[in-house]
Amino acid sequence: MPEPTHRFLRACLRLPTDRTPIWIMRQAGRYLPEYMATRKQAGDFLSLCKNPELATQVTMQPIDRFGLDAAILFSDILVVPEAMGMGLSFGTGEGPLLEPVINSASDLEKLHDPDPESELEYVMKTIRSIRRALDGRVPLIGFSGSPWTLATYMIEGGSSKTFSRIKGMMYDRPELLQALLDRLVAAVTNYLNAQIRHGVQAVQIFDTWGGVLGHDEFLRFSLESMRRIVAGLERIGPDGAKVPVILFAKGCGSHLEAMADSGCDVVGLDWTTDLARARVRVQGRVALQGNMDPAVLSASPERIRREAERVLTAYGPHPGHVFNLGHGITPDCTPDKVAGLVAAVQNFTFGSHAP
Amino acid sequence: MPEPTHRFLRACLRLPTDRTPIWIMRQAGRYLPEYMATRKQAGDFLSLCKNPELATQVTMQPIDRFGLDAAILFSDILVVPEAMGMGLSFGTGEGPLLEPVINSASDLEKLHDPDPESELEYVMKTIRSIRRALDGRVPLIGFSGSPWTLATYMIEGGSSKTFSRIKGMMYDRPELLQALLDRLVAAVTNYLNAQIRHGVQAVQIFDTWGGVLGHDEFLRFSLESMRRIVAGLERIGPDGAKVPVILFAKGCGSHLEAMADSGCDVVGLDWTTDLARARVRVQGRVALQGNMDPAVLSASPERIRREAERVLTAYGPHPGHVFNLGHGITPDCTPDKVAGLVAAVQNFTFGSHAP
Repeated sequence: MPEPTHRFLRACLRLPTDRTPIWIMRQAGRYLPEYMATRKQAGDFLSLCKNPELATQVTMQPIDRFGLDAAILFSDILVVPEAMGMGLSFGTGEGPLLEPVINSASDLEKLHDPDPESELEYVMKTIRSIRRALDGRVPLIGFSGSPWTLATYMIEGGSSKTFSRIKGMMYDRPELLQALLDRLVAAVTNYLNAQIRHGVQAVQIFDTWGGVLGHDEFLRFSLESMRRIVAGLERIGPDGAKVPVILFAKGCGSHLEAMADSGCDVVGLDWTTDLARARVRVQGRVALQGNMDPAVLSASPERIRREAERVLTAYGPHPGHVFNLGHGITPDCTPDKVAGLVAAVQNFTFGSHAP
Repeated sequence: MPEPTHRFLRACLRLPTDRTPIWIMRQAGRYLPEYMATRKQAGDFLSLCKNPELATQVTMQPIDRFGLDAAILFSDILVVPEAMGMGLSFGTGEGPLLEPVINSASDLEKLHDPDPESELEYVMKTIRSIRRALDGRVPLIGFSGSPWTLATYMIEGGSSKTFSRIKGMMYDRPELLQALLDRLVAAVTNYLNAQIRHGVQAVQIFDTWGGVLGHDEFLRFSLESMRRIVAGLERIGPDGAKVPVILFAKGCGSHLEAMADSGCDVVGLDWTTDLARARVRVQGRVALQGNMDPAVLSASPERIRREAERVLTAYGPHPGHVFNLGHGITPDCTPDKVAGLVAAVQNFTFGSHAP
């Protein structure tokens, strides 16, 4: 298999690069005025996700503006539960609402196993459209939520602070939760494989809520599902290139070794994990992605530069680092701060900065 | 110094006990109908905190109902910023509001260094009243918020999701943040020493928001302030007994070794840290408190019992374990679930249960 040339893909596969690649979770988002304009044109967030032309526009905006090293498909993790038959809406300022919630075996039976080629066709169209727009400039990342994270929304009906419904099910009816997770493993595997067939060049699985679990529960109810998905992915894209898989689990720094053994190529870290120690802990088994605190972007340009250099220096001059924030960029950020961050990463060279 | 007789105090000092003691964070709270009745009588939450007679009532309610092994002063961490001169209110369902927020050196100058004997006299009255009501049945725990955690509320003006204001200050004006932390170190040290003089037999420092920091920032901006407080405490109470200090920092499992070196007697853990490994990591330097997921209380009685036994077994038959939840009990809990949990801990004996 030929080695990839794009520095993002090379870093994912722990191959040497000319500099550390950078992309940013939620790089296409509310902090960008051009995003807000396109979103207004679309009407609302979900309509934007389902409009291949406009979703392509917002995917391209941060690439055009900042020269980032990867684009990421503009979509939402909850389009999968929607394609399985759940009602999905985004209340103003309230986060997502899914209904009816899953609370029994008969609720589960009503769920549908979606064919991504038809029922998520708009995503596939968007992927092809973005690839045309990118025209080989940088690779395109596809994504999905993890089964555990998707299950939290499907069982809680939306965001939660306490996760009492899904945890109640986990403790008292683990077989029901497992049955839902099994359905999601199949749906997500099919969905990501379709994304790969239509042109994404890497995939990221977001386990946003794995961090609310204890260690044993994380292994059993979150990581195991992700491991099965990774095992079921077509890791070679239609162009014959290897498709790296990134696992990002927020608040899961203490489960790092287990994540590194999941079969993925890259583990994404939030900012509470020390990157230097994380590199030692994974012992070269995976690349690492991250992990600057998004809150640094509210600091001064000088401070942003120093923090970026601190993260780069923490990983050190070894292959296998993809620079990113430790979580999505927040809407109160401003584009000039992001420009400063990207420049800091792009201009950094090892040896010229104090550790 | 004579050894304490109460099993909670003995466990804090890693002395052998007849069984593992249990208390529960927020054991006096909204899940108890008798609490709701007393709170209604008081008018609102803050009035309840400031009424020594009613605060004593609610402190005693879970002791009377469940036979827990320690009582904890009914109060709120934000009475300290209020005593420093900030306006404090609790909006309905919105969490606390503090104003005006701290954003400059002149804001800081306007803060007052409170004399706890006069400006927090109602707390001292409550402590004496609770000690009379307890009449030696179980020890009384006093508490305070950590300087970092109090500073988040004082700088953000209330709860926050992103902590962008305090983190902006931490990155760009660390000397200003440090000056506020210094004021809080003094205020909290004075406050806890006054609590000890008036009769609390152990103290817990709650670092609710230390977990939003990276490792280096946690050490510098949160743990160091707590270390200075611990060093400044009068560790011998008026009765000549040692007063154990508990540090509880949510989401800080990866900083455990550093916390164990802070001079405290007990480290409180949330449920995301494996208790067996945590015990090995602290190497007998401190006792451990925790760490059942509060969400287990939404499960069946049988499952609650099994999870309690799993936590007890994870620590094992060694001195130095205080059973607790990994965070406060949630309002949607019911008293019968708590009764089942307490019974499970009280009836547990090592050797009779599978690990």
